[in-house]
Amino acid sequence: MTMKVLVVSATPEPRSFAAAMGKASVDTMRELGHAVEHSDLYAMNWNPVASAADFGTRRDPDYLTYALEQRHNVTAGTLAPDIRAELDKLVAADLLILNFPIYWFSMPAILKGWIDRVFVSGLCYGGRRIFDQGGLAGKRALVGLTIGGRETMFGPEGIHGPLDHLLRPILKGTLGYVGYDVHEPFIGWHVPYIPDEARRAILADYVECLRGLDRRPILPMPAMDGFNADLSPKPAV
Amino acid sequence: MTMKVLVVSATPEPRSFAAAMGKASVDTMRELGHAVEHSDLYAMNWNPVASAADFGTRRDPDYLTYALEQRHNVTAGTLAPDIRAELDKLVAADLLILNFPIYWFSMPAILKGWIDRVFVSGLCYGGRRIFDQGGLAGKRALVGLTIGGRETMFGPEGIHGPLDHLLRPILKGTLGYVGYDVHEPFIGWHVPYIPDEARRAILADYVECLRGLDRRPILPMPAMDGFNADLSPKPAV
Repeated sequence: MTMKVLVVSATPEPRSFAAAMGKASVDTMRELGHAVEHSDLYAMNWNPVASAADFGTRRDPDYLTYALEQRHNVTAGTLAPDIRAELDKLVAADLLILNFPIYWFSMPAILKGWIDRVFVSGLCYGGRRIFDQGGLAGKRALVGLTIGGRETMFGPEGIHGPLDHLLRPILKGTLGYVGYDVHEPFIGWHVPYIPDEARRAILADYVECLRGLDRRPILPMPAMDGFNADLSPKPAV
Repeated sequence: MTMKVLVVSATPEPRSFAAAMGKASVDTMRELGHAVEHSDLYAMNWNPVASAADFGTRRDPDYLTYALEQRHNVTAGTLAPDIRAELDKLVAADLLILNFPIYWFSMPAILKGWIDRVFVSGLCYGGRRIFDQGGLAGKRALVGLTIGGRETMFGPEGIHGPLDHLLRPILKGTLGYVGYDVHEPFIGWHVPYIPDEARRAILADYVECLRGLDRRPILPMPAMDGFNADLSPKPAV
């Protein structure tokens, strides 16, 4: 089945491995017959700073509550044009792919600020409209990232602990939160420090991951019927 | 004992509770006799985007490996002036305080990009110079943040899981990593949605936290002598 795909990539070096992963996402998905949009945030000179300038009208002109103004400006149709353009791509896409190098066990700021500004309250989520009730429920997301560290630095006994714990704010707190079915992430380990041949093998694995994406496991997320109206957990039955 | 303190705050609304926490950090530490610098990132119009423009000279002019160019430019004294100014404050400070509203279980992009650009490889960390061997070992850090959620949404049974897990990339992966003794964070729960009186009580608690900071627990961090040269864990004795 033909899908709409949005690839969002963020790396300051256009010839980096993260950039090659972004290009592989675009090329592979097109080869598979899907319609692909690509937001290359550095090339777009994306502004990552959430501010009052993001809103053409104001619910409260005197005091900025960012999420409430997002909600108001979604309804009023007055979000800043750069946000609206990205939001249109996001809402149209059946599959979102994020490609980036890990900076401080999280995203580079330019990508964090794409999330901050584009994942708007009122459309992507709001109140109890999160996880399986989220605004983007029914869509899928894949994170394909590079990391300087080796796999031995992670896991329960590793110096940094399990990588999936460190990625939870992204995988669960962001992508799962707005409703995506989130695939197991693809990790390019230690890529700045390995031979070119090893990097080529990782890139080939990544292309295989994209080609077989339908079979890639989906991470477990909370089901909203396990929680009360105030989002406190219901007692176990 | 008189300390040097650096307060870094990030909020798009100058009258927000996070802004009030930033001001409380500055005022309280000055009242206690400490020398305080304040980086108010929105007021400074801080640029959060890591890029080739951050480097006055290049180790490799053709291919940007951000961390390696940080290392080179620290040694050469050619970091961009905005980074150098913040780095000087950071290195001088005995105590770093970060005040911000949680955005997507992490920092607002403007603050994430302060970390990305200012916590430079070669000075703040490098190779095995992390955690108790980190470049900023011997200093202390406190995170004081606001969050929209209620405390009932967190914890082992909570919909989002324990908040300290979600904060691990910041507390351990960033502040602990470069060597800080990291205090238990101060959390202003649900602040956008509670009465003004309740907010005033939280702010008073925060001032008490600052006044009694010496007694506030320090989070456990890995000790480097438990790990091999490649950072894999040594077998338990």
